[in-house]
Amino acid sequence: MNDLSDRAPPLFPHRHLLGIEGLQPYEIETLLDLADQAVALSRQVEKKRNILRGRTQINLFFEASTRTQSSFELAGKRLGADVMNMSVASSSVKKGETLIDTAQTLNAMRPDILVVRHHAAGAVELLARKVGCSVINAGDGAHEHPTQALLDALTIRRNKGRISGLTVAICGDILHSRVARSNMLLLSALGARVRVVAPSTLLPAGIRDMGAEVHTSMKAGLKDADIVMMLRLQRERMDGSFVPSVREYFHYWGLDEEKLAYAAPDALVMHPGPMNRGVEIAPSVADGPRSLIGEQVEMGVAVRMAVLEALSAHLPQH
Amino acid sequence: MNDLSDRAPPLFPHRHLLGIEGLQPYEIETLLDLADQAVALSRQVEKKRNILRGRTQINLFFEASTRTQSSFELAGKRLGADVMNMSVASSSVKKGETLIDTAQTLNAMRPDILVVRHHAAGAVELLARKVGCSVINAGDGAHEHPTQALLDALTIRRNKGRISGLTVAICGDILHSRVARSNMLLLSALGARVRVVAPSTLLPAGIRDMGAEVHTSMKAGLKDADIVMMLRLQRERMDGSFVPSVREYFHYWGLDEEKLAYAAPDALVMHPGPMNRGVEIAPSVADGPRSLIGEQVEMGVAVRMAVLEALSAHLPQH
Amino acid sequence: MNDLSDRAPPLFPHRHLLGIEGLQPYEIETLLDLADQAVALSRQVEKKRNILRGRTQINLFFEASTRTQSSFELAGKRLGADVMNMSVASSSVKKGETLIDTAQTLNAMRPDILVVRHHAAGAVELLARKVGCSVINAGDGAHEHPTQALLDALTIRRNKGRISGLTVAICGDILHSRVARSNMLLLSALGARVRVVAPSTLLPAGIRDMGAEVHTSMKAGLKDADIVMMLRLQRERMDGSFVPSVREYFHYWGLDEEKLAYAAPDALVMHPGPMNRGVEIAPSVADGPRSLIGEQVEMGVAVRMAVLEALSAHLPQH
Repeated sequence: MNDLSDRAPPLFPHRHLLGIEGLQPYEIETLLDLADQAVALSRQVEKKRNILRGRTQINLFFEASTRTQSSFELAGKRLGADVMNMSVASSSVKKGETLIDTAQTLNAMRPDILVVRHHAAGAVELLARKVGCSVINAGDGAHEHPTQALLDALTIRRNKGRISGLTVAICGDILHSRVARSNMLLLSALGARVRVVAPSTLLPAGIRDMGAEVHTSMKAGLKDADIVMMLRLQRERMDGSFVPSVREYFHYWGLDEEKLAYAAPDALVMHPGPMNRGVEIAPSVADGPRSLIGEQVEMGVAVRMAVLEALSAHLPQH
Repeated sequence: MNDLSDRAPPLFPHRHLLGIEGLQPYEIETLLDLADQAVALSRQVEKKRNILRGRTQINLFFEASTRTQSSFELAGKRLGADVMNMSVASSSVKKGETLIDTAQTLNAMRPDILVVRHHAAGAVELLARKVGCSVINAGDGAHEHPTQALLDALTIRRNKGRISGLTVAICGDILHSRVARSNMLLLSALGARVRVVAPSTLLPAGIRDMGAEVHTSMKAGLKDADIVMMLRLQRERMDGSFVPSVREYFHYWGLDEEKLAYAAPDALVMHPGPMNRGVEIAPSVADGPRSLIGEQVEMGVAVRMAVLEALSAHLPQH
Repeated sequence: MNDLSDRAPPLFPHRHLLGIEGLQPYEIETLLDLADQAVALSRQVEKKRNILRGRTQINLFFEASTRTQSSFELAGKRLGADVMNMSVASSSVKKGETLIDTAQTLNAMRPDILVVRHHAAGAVELLARKVGCSVINAGDGAHEHPTQALLDALTIRRNKGRISGLTVAICGDILHSRVARSNMLLLSALGARVRVVAPSTLLPAGIRDMGAEVHTSMKAGLKDADIVMMLRLQRERMDGSFVPSVREYFHYWGLDEEKLAYAAPDALVMHPGPMNRGVEIAPSVADGPRSLIGEQVEMGVAVRMAVLEALSAHLPQH
């Protein structure tokens, strides 16, 4: 794995990764190339590198997340960092400390990298302005989740050989999904045709100005799609005004073999997890031969290693 | 400490450790021999080896357990592994993900070893069939807890010089105890005479077919026993139909000096912890000169190091 | 950084750090000198030393604390230790295990260092008598919090060049504060004049016999003070008999620019965190040019590294 810090100027010129918005296509490609190398490393017996040895990575999660936090933890450890997890449950937030105080407290401990998940859109960027280290957005409200979009792109590129020119249908609960937003930005930047497919009640206002085709039926939305990306129905974020019945939702919007047949014959299926089986996706599709869902998780660790490595050229030199 | 991976064929031919059932006596002895070496290592100033360097160990606990999880964490770290803890509290299980999805998600992160505790008997074996790495059962329902039985055997062997021919009385809440079950299997395999001693309400159906002598009085059950192994009264697993009063339970079944006098003059006392002092065991016995309870905990780390080392010959070579 | 274990006799002759009480002034200065070196290390790119390589540090927290636990975790990791966190939430305490059983269980796992926080005064000392390793008190009830006092002293010494002869006003909720108690002991030992400033309802009985000047008005208490140390109002420890209204408390006891003007013109402001902004301190003061609050957190990691290093000469040689 190349260490970008040896090159001048670095191919990835940012100190933080706060979102896909603002990244140039070649910067995204640089991250995907590094991630390809990280996949190879993680498949070896000896998975450990020293790129971040002596560096401190803090995972600050204001919302619980098994797979994202684990993925960042393994990524940091495989690059040799000292990794410390901090979850809200054990944090001073309960004692009335503000987000900014928490950030400044952590910053004073001289970490090199803060990985932050927060329930409020924009919180991670606010925090990044207050600290001296690199910040990675691990999901902020309904705003962005850039490493998820990167791992989705990596999975697509490895299976289809390209992203440009593909038709990708993102389906389901677009309204509550930072995953959808980051994916729309990234896939458009790399030349894919992006469609969003959802009931109108699960579409955010202004979706029609965001550059994606909008469909309100699975039949039209999946037609000839190369990639069908299902989203988790986030009932826990719904406020009662519209909580669909599971049975009805699956009937109209759940991906089963019948709806998948609308897509291209070699269409592949993705899901960011955790899945609601029988709600947005049929178990037979999730576990079927066209599913990339397990591979997405593996790519998640690799993409986070790539981001950590890319940022390592910009870590505090104190 | 020898690294078994240098030998052909390996003395421990299994990829997983799911239970004591199915292990050959010489395989058990191999693990105990390795554990003796691990005890010596852990008593040194420098406790660290590199057998698992670059390897990833995930401790996946669906039930909380201080000592078992800590013991596996220290064992892994002392062998150089990157260890990641995942508890249910912070897991996607709350978001409705199934056991199998969780397993497949973790598996996709390319761990080498999964240490799993689950409240359902058989869950760990089911999970092992779905992953590409080695799986260690850290307790599944009332089924098995193989590393507990191994550490008990190690403790006995180090204090009595042998296991074969000893009389071991396992006393108390047999019904809810995976510890009892794994111990009965292991101690019988190595030639001990095993007795279970409990009120009939705390004996599982079919206990009389499992090869152990069954006693329903402490006086008869402890007579001439070399080892008295007390079990924790698991009131939290009782459903109300039979929850004994603590005072009455201690009177009939709690190990005090008077009851201990029924056993052999050099009998030793064990307990897997955590103890209910004054319920199944008197504090004076727990802290007395015949107690091996503290030593059992130390042996716990050593046995887990031994199991990790033994499995290291079978870890994924990807 | 010097490793004290090379010197004979060691400059810090204690096996445990249970409190400031009983430390000699030169021992405190030794720790502060080591901490100055640790500050320099933590500001480097490569923050890692091997002083504790192969050693096991367990952080045993019976009360949650973001910053103290994190600070000890980073300190241990930067010195190369294997660090394991154990919080009450996941511990056997819930299963009815006693403090002593927990201590003895952990001790049997052969740790080298136990860092302990407990809600009961004296619990850490009791625990230290039962284990074979070094114990560091990370706060016990309203008794002591020695590493907090050390980091406060380090912060003062680095900013004022000395401690002797300074006037330090400790203000607010003295009654519930182990921080106040440890600071009074340490600062007095090093020759500072210590004042406590609080409403009489927040002063402990016997405070007038502890060697500090006692003031019940901010105006008199802050007069010509070189350091103004604000304490967190610990409403969660108050039992309802006296819970002040926040607005009233801030009016009389909250540090704003007006009250800070009573102090010396070059007075500096401290707070152990987490802060209640607008309760005991105005945001403008907390974030103002005289605030040392962020620096205190940085000094916290350094002081804990210093304590770990000082104790390393006394760790179990098994």
